[in-house]
Amino acid sequence: MATHPRFVSLEGGEGAGKTTVLAALRTTLAEDGAEVVVTREPGGTPLAERIRELVLDPGGAPAIAEAELLLVFAARVQHVRELIEPALARGAWVLCDRYTDSSYAYQGGGRGLDAARIELLERGFVGLRPGLTLLLDIDVARGRERTRGRDLVPDRIEGERDEFFERVRAAYLARAHAEPGRFRVIDAAPPAEKVAAAAVAALRGWRASA
Amino acid sequence: MATHPRFVSLEGGEGAGKTTVLAALRTTLAEDGAEVVVTREPGGTPLAERIRELVLDPGGAPAIAEAELLLVFAARVQHVRELIEPALARGAWVLCDRYTDSSYAYQGGGRGLDAARIELLERGFVGLRPGLTLLLDIDVARGRERTRGRDLVPDRIEGERDEFFERVRAAYLARAHAEPGRFRVIDAAPPAEKVAAAAVAALRGWRASA
Ligand SMILES: Nc1ncnc2c1ncn2[C@@H]1O[C@H](COP(=O)(O)OP(=O)(O)OP(=O)(O)O)[C@@H](O)[C@H]1O
Ligand SMILES: Nc1ncnc2c1ncn2[C@@H]1O[C@H](COP(=O)(O)OP(=O)(O)OP(=O)(O)O)[C@@H](O)[C@H]1O
Ligand SMILES: [Mg+2]
Ligand SMILES: [Mg+2]
Repeated sequence: MATHPRFVSLEGGEGAGKTTVLAALRTTLAEDGAEVVVTREPGGTPLAERIRELVLDPGGAPAIAEAELLLVFAARVQHVRELIEPALARGAWVLCDRYTDSSYAYQGGGRGLDAARIELLERGFVGLRPGLTLLLDIDVARGRERTRGRDLVPDRIEGERDEFFERVRAAYLARAHAEPGRFRVIDAAPPAEKVAAAAVAALRGWRASA
Repeated sequence: MATHPRFVSLEGGEGAGKTTVLAALRTTLAEDGAEVVVTREPGGTPLAERIRELVLDPGGAPAIAEAELLLVFAARVQHVRELIEPALARGAWVLCDRYTDSSYAYQGGGRGLDAARIELLERGFVGLRPGLTLLLDIDVARGRERTRGRDLVPDRIEGERDEFFERVRAAYLARAHAEPGRFRVIDAAPPAEKVAAAAVAALRGWRASA
């Protein structure tokens, strides 16, 4: 599968601090004058954001696990072809808040779908991996504590039970273990400035080596 | 792949007469006291109907071919698991206005996606084929003539050019040729009563043999 050195994904469970850390990474890269595209999944293009609503809207029609998986991959192929690849082609960095590892962690680990079918979609329809994936790892209870009160109504994923998120965390760690070249695991328990500093250091290290 | 003898799909290009013929087939089966579920694709469940809107809405955000394919398969797995399989399991007949052959014809033939990737989704996520597929075959111009004036604004598929629909027709005929046991090709040019009578005869023949 193709990887791209300027394509960086942020992964981790609820409240790990992905969105917070992205701002620090963007600043670091922008200091050097690079164009930086910050985006997210599911979403990142008009169609993909509409698919995101279908998947997450707690008042909408519920999806079985396989339909949810196909929907997030539909959003992803649109996002990759319409936004990510063109940005990389013109020389920009792309920082993505969640990407394919989220499918392995949430639809795979969380919902129990086999990784082989997820990989079939990844290879058959996406074909692009980040050069660097920062996994913000945090205790499930602690992460959820951080997001408490953020939304009045939890979305379809946030409404899951703790066991679900334990499986998500385990799936993330297993993926990081299997692909040490792409992943950097960052302890997300310290205060936000420390976590951001660790993420920035990991990105600098990656950029120097790439 | 599993097939089911009481699962019947109607296929064909725009204006071939699928929706018209379905009513006659329903009446035929209902005369014998069978429960008959009439449904359609993309759609058939609340989530799948929302996906249908995403795919067809001419004012919405356009999908690349692969995203369109994944969306129709997301709708299909939801439809099969939530509606079609439970109906078959309780003994009903299921008459479906378009099904997987439409993906091979429109996203495959029409949009040019390779059949191998479509089959990968069919085998990996759907796994169910109709026992009988009635293909209503009609000259492209004649079919479009029938639907003229039906909608003020053509949907995303209806807005395609004639070459697209010629490829759709050719893909349908190739599939019917490759699977003569499942397909019955019906000439859809005659008046509606004649086409309906031919479809009813094909269904009766199938039921007698199954
Ligand atoms: N290291 C940290 N220590 C304490 N609080 C933090 C830390 N990082 C982020 N926060 C706070 O926790 C909350 C969740 O952070 P953030 O939204 O960045 O997490 P996230 O990983 O993007 O979550 P989600 O998966 O729900 O999008 C925010 O209120 C943020 O200010
Ligand atoms: N055999 C026929 N001869 C003439 N007109 C017909 C015939 N069958 C259907 N029609 C008319 O043609 C129009 C299209 O028919 P219908 O909606 O059944 O086609 P369809 O295959 O379901 O089309 P679509 O793919 O757009 O759903 C309708 O106005 C219908 O009354
Ligand atoms: Mg976030
Ligand atoms: Mg119709």
